[in-house]
Amino acid sequence: MSKFLTEKYQKLKPYTPGEQPKERAYIKLNTNESPFPPSPQAIERARAEADKLMLYPDPECKELAGLLAEKCGVSNDCVILTNGSDEVLNFAFMAYCDGNTPAVFADITYGFYKVFAELNGVPYREIPLKEDFSLCVDEYIQADGTVFIANPNAPTGLALPRTEIERLLKANPNRVVVVDEAYVDFGGESCIPLTEKYGNLLVVQTFSKSRSMAGARLGFGVGSPALIEDLTRVRYSTNPYNVNKMTMAAGLGALSDEKYFQENCKTIIENRAWTERELEKIGFTLTRSKTNFIFAKHERLGGEELYLKLKEKGVLVRHFSAPRIAEYNRITVGSKKEMEILIERIKSILEETK
Amino acid sequence: MSKFLTEKYQKLKPYTPGEQPKERAYIKLNTNESPFPPSPQAIERARAEADKLMLYPDPECKELAGLLAEKCGVSNDCVILTNGSDEVLNFAFMAYCDGNTPAVFADITYGFYKVFAELNGVPYREIPLKEDFSLCVDEYIQADGTVFIANPNAPTGLALPRTEIERLLKANPNRVVVVDEAYVDFGGESCIPLTEKYGNLLVVQTFSKSRSMAGARLGFGVGSPALIEDLTRVRYSTNPYNVNKMTMAAGLGALSDEKYFQENCKTIIENRAWTERELEKIGFTLTRSKTNFIFAKHERLGGEELYLKLKEKGVLVRHFSAPRIAEYNRITVGSKKEMEILIERIKSILEETK
Repeated sequence: MSKFLTEKYQKLKPYTPGEQPKERAYIKLNTNESPFPPSPQAIERARAEADKLMLYPDPECKELAGLLAEKCGVSNDCVILTNGSDEVLNFAFMAYCDGNTPAVFADITYGFYKVFAELNGVPYREIPLKEDFSLCVDEYIQADGTVFIANPNAPTGLALPRTEIERLLKANPNRVVVVDEAYVDFGGESCIPLTEKYGNLLVVQTFSKSRSMAGARLGFGVGSPALIEDLTRVRYSTNPYNVNKMTMAAGLGALSDEKYFQENCKTIIENRAWTERELEKIGFTLTRSKTNFIFAKHERLGGEELYLKLKEKGVLVRHFSAPRIAEYNRITVGSKKEMEILIERIKSILEETK
Repeated sequence: MSKFLTEKYQKLKPYTPGEQPKERAYIKLNTNESPFPPSPQAIERARAEADKLMLYPDPECKELAGLLAEKCGVSNDCVILTNGSDEVLNFAFMAYCDGNTPAVFADITYGFYKVFAELNGVPYREIPLKEDFSLCVDEYIQADGTVFIANPNAPTGLALPRTEIERLLKANPNRVVVVDEAYVDFGGESCIPLTEKYGNLLVVQTFSKSRSMAGARLGFGVGSPALIEDLTRVRYSTNPYNVNKMTMAAGLGALSDEKYFQENCKTIIENRAWTERELEKIGFTLTRSKTNFIFAKHERLGGEELYLKLKEKGVLVRHFSAPRIAEYNRITVGSKKEMEILIERIKSILEETK
């Protein structure tokens, strides 16, 4: 740290991304990436842009915003595109939280919410999930602040039905509710259909998981034209050219290939079900995941122990040392082959530690 | 604007990017883009990443940071890569300005500095350039704040010698000096060699102009390890995966092709000299540009009039309505062919308005 860094940022605890070790080839089940490449249409369109990079991207992202709005069933002025969904989440913290309006989110949820609150110097309140990691919407109804709910939640994998979010929106009309749907395509219920009715709802999604585009960085927000206007104002004051040309093109290709997208989601859901059954057979307790990961705890092996032993055996999963979840691991659902190897390696570990 | 937007951002005046009209094909000389495609190596490497986008990019940008550091003659911990250079500029406003440390910059310079100051809620002071648009370093020596100097400056095109920046760094050791070198490759003197000696110097550059990669969004900062650590802390608290995989790969390709880069810079400098001579012949006054644009005012035609008439004739240049520069236009130096058309169209306009 330099002596010049302003006081506000000296205390900042940055987000810790999942490890990306390069010393050996791991089976990577730690950052919820897709095991499938992007749609061939996405690949082709991204490649076609590479020799046109001397020109700036369209700061309005018109073509992509138009197609996305169509797919979401909203009008063009109801979407904003960003450099990954973290960016639109940060914009929402900037736009809708301040000293008088704290951020409110669960104690166990996406770790970046706390970082964004601290980055923007806004107070925040964490509401504990229930013992079984479920989220009680009633506790957010009286929360006097901007609510951030990951639905489905990470790392627990649990989803709330749309009706529960609607209950919150109705009861809380003077506060923005941000629903972060990074994992919604694997079995959750999207709240996008509610954005037309509720001017206080911002839905955030990403192309990183179900569209296999984590490496391209493309996220988006859907909300009322007024909310999108706010966020666009922040975007134009931060980085108007935030989405590069190749990523925009890849996004167009991905959205045009609905079949590929649906098939991949279906395969992940099937692989999840298979892995869940196998894990339960060998002593794991699982949450009811609606995502592309499984949140699992073993009856005998500790969370950190399993994480380390799997790493030794060439399989990376994600372990969080936070108190309530330290006995769990978050395991990305990969290809069937990867899941088979995972189960086989866990079985050897259980054998070796008997 | 929604009723939810916090007070701080209600007053925000966002940056206005150069227009990108789509209703007809213009000769685009308004956003300082390169007329040349990126290096074939950049194109090829970007394309090779498109089928690997399901994986996150390396948040440490290790390979690219390593090659960049080598090219800059600094160690690996002295560089930070960002989603365009606007992002690292914003990080510098975040890290080094606050209520006690205002931002200090010229009255006529890159328009985003003022936007970043307002975005981050920090006070700023604009120091007027001299009548001839030159910048007097002495006026910054007593400036009690973080200094932002675009060198060469935009839209004036004028450059300060490195010795002048060094004088400022020496006299101002307790404040950070940010030197924004977006245009340095077209005839300026880079301050990167000073970063080892002066722990208060941050140099910012971009791949947008001289490397023909505006559409890919890649910028970087070079400074002491302590400054880079500060900015990395901000980066990891904002968007750790800020640079996408295709752009990183394109950056590697571009840096590997020094010959292509040098030749393009040389061509732009030659085209600039040719255009300057032609403009002077027909009544223009010019600044002494060290950039890929020309800042020009005609003896008879007003700045806005010329801008509008050129637009009618299919040539876009950039006009700023700010008081001291309203009679000027900023004209990007494109290909020789584009410059010939520009001159020919201006000649017709002069003819028509005689």
